[in-house]
Amino acid sequence: MAHLPKRLTGDQAAINQFLDQFDIFLFDCDGVLWSGDHLFPGTVETLELLRSKETGKKIVFVTNNSTKSRADYQKKLTGMGIPSNVDEIFASAYSSAIYISRILKLPAPKNKVFVLGESGIETELKSEGIEFIGGTDPAYRRDITPEDYAGIADGSLLDENVGIVLAGLDYHINYLKLSHAYHYLTRGAKFLATNTDSTLPSNHAFFPGAGSISIPLVNMTGQQPIVLGKPSQAMMDSIEGKFQFDRKKACMVGDRLNTDIRFGIEGKLGGTLAVLTGVSKKSEWEAEGAPIVPAYYVDKLSDLMG
Amino acid sequence: MAHLPKRLTGDQAAINQFLDQFDIFLFDCDGVLWSGDHLFPGTVETLELLRSKETGKKIVFVTNNSTKSRADYQKKLTGMGIPSNVDEIFASAYSSAIYISRILKLPAPKNKVFVLGESGIETELKSEGIEFIGGTDPAYRRDITPEDYAGIADGSLLDENVGIVLAGLDYHINYLKLSHAYHYLTRGAKFLATNTDSTLPSNHAFFPGAGSISIPLVNMTGQQPIVLGKPSQAMMDSIEGKFQFDRKKACMVGDRLNTDIRFGIEGKLGGTLAVLTGVSKKSEWEAEGAPIVPAYYVDKLSDLMG
Repeated sequence: MAHLPKRLTGDQAAINQFLDQFDIFLFDCDGVLWSGDHLFPGTVETLELLRSKETGKKIVFVTNNSTKSRADYQKKLTGMGIPSNVDEIFASAYSSAIYISRILKLPAPKNKVFVLGESGIETELKSEGIEFIGGTDPAYRRDITPEDYAGIADGSLLDENVGIVLAGLDYHINYLKLSHAYHYLTRGAKFLATNTDSTLPSNHAFFPGAGSISIPLVNMTGQQPIVLGKPSQAMMDSIEGKFQFDRKKACMVGDRLNTDIRFGIEGKLGGTLAVLTGVSKKSEWEAEGAPIVPAYYVDKLSDLMG
Repeated sequence: MAHLPKRLTGDQAAINQFLDQFDIFLFDCDGVLWSGDHLFPGTVETLELLRSKETGKKIVFVTNNSTKSRADYQKKLTGMGIPSNVDEIFASAYSSAIYISRILKLPAPKNKVFVLGESGIETELKSEGIEFIGGTDPAYRRDITPEDYAGIADGSLLDENVGIVLAGLDYHINYLKLSHAYHYLTRGAKFLATNTDSTLPSNHAFFPGAGSISIPLVNMTGQQPIVLGKPSQAMMDSIEGKFQFDRKKACMVGDRLNTDIRFGIEGKLGGTLAVLTGVSKKSEWEAEGAPIVPAYYVDKLSDLMG
């Protein structure tokens, strides 16, 4: 059985020792910094403490949100009252664009992307100079027609340069888009997903997440996508590729054991810190044979201020 | 290892012995009677032979097609040139309606159905006097709004009498409908699917099937639906409930081992007859350890005419 995590809340010596170990903190956001539209008290001050000259830590906001570009997400942080720099933000749309342009590197011209998703994905693909179709194009936001069936089936309505299908959260998912994506996959396109969260928190409830867009394609093709969001290590590789840090000096902070903490453990980071202000409960890692146990935990993030 | 099937093609004595055993034949359609829009030669004559006074067999057309009511499907048969009676047709939309009204029998008023699907399902639910919402209602064929999020999350936009979510093939699937269906399921509605075929043949290719509509809900809730199409035995129970036949005197005829032939074997019918004009090949049942082996096969259905 794994060691139980060290609780840092109320233990200043342990907090100091904890902070001294790390140069960079990767932060999950919802459930850690805020919940829904409610900013947790002390979030801003805790981030300031980490960034301050005394500690000099690097901060990265890591989110599976695939509908927002980094710039969109910075607006969200600003709206929540959290100062940030766009370079501190790593969202799954950006992670996907980085993966396509810097790791996958399919030879042109067969490297076009068919997108299931919103404008955040398109913005990040453009920022990496990646060609794409689908996405928010109104031409795909309609019912399927007999001409579509014929042209998709015989390929005449498909773009022969599409080499990748990228599935993120698409609020405008429909039968026509699924049909296109399926046919590109059967013709050999690589299958990527920004993230595969089955649900997404909103309005203190859950709604369909990006995994709801990719799962019909998994079911139809029998293929699993390369996933560019937590806990997939393809995302960690992208983060490391961009920030060039020593994994032993990095700590992942999050509220979900099976995404955030798992992401840090499987990425062999020096540490993982769980907070109890989100989804996972202490009882989960205290359970006999708990598969995922963080190295540290605090009741709430601001407990790091001592 | 199971016995290899008896080939009937060209063996009149074996054909006569085969026909003598059965009172009722359950027919899969696409791949057996026709392929796409091409009627196989001899289909009409073979069905006539079975129905004729000399043999006096009962015929049932069994289809997983969930978008059509029995009346719609009869029009399709007529269009293909196949004479039929609406009472000979058993489609998964009808199967679902029968299951809800005669087997599930939830107490009113909490027995309303939220439908993901087309008009065929609505027609069959109406024919059984079942109340429903969703389906082809234009109120659900639109983008989700902030008001929808709030009202779905707090339940104010949900119908408290919905006790069943029925997922069939919905050519107008969207994020709003998936959100409604998901929330009804999390509030305890029973989860039913007309069928779970991941794909559907069309234009000599494949397109998303009814399974593509239910699979995001399976993924979000962790629940499996009760399935009312082949090879689910819930469909066989519905067929038996309606036609009142001796299973030992019934034979399932189909082209797909993993749906049609499996349906007949698991239903403990007296016989199964595979045809080689559709999806499955002879090599599949000849393979070492083949899990599904029909009792009989013909190269093509019209070989039964001898």
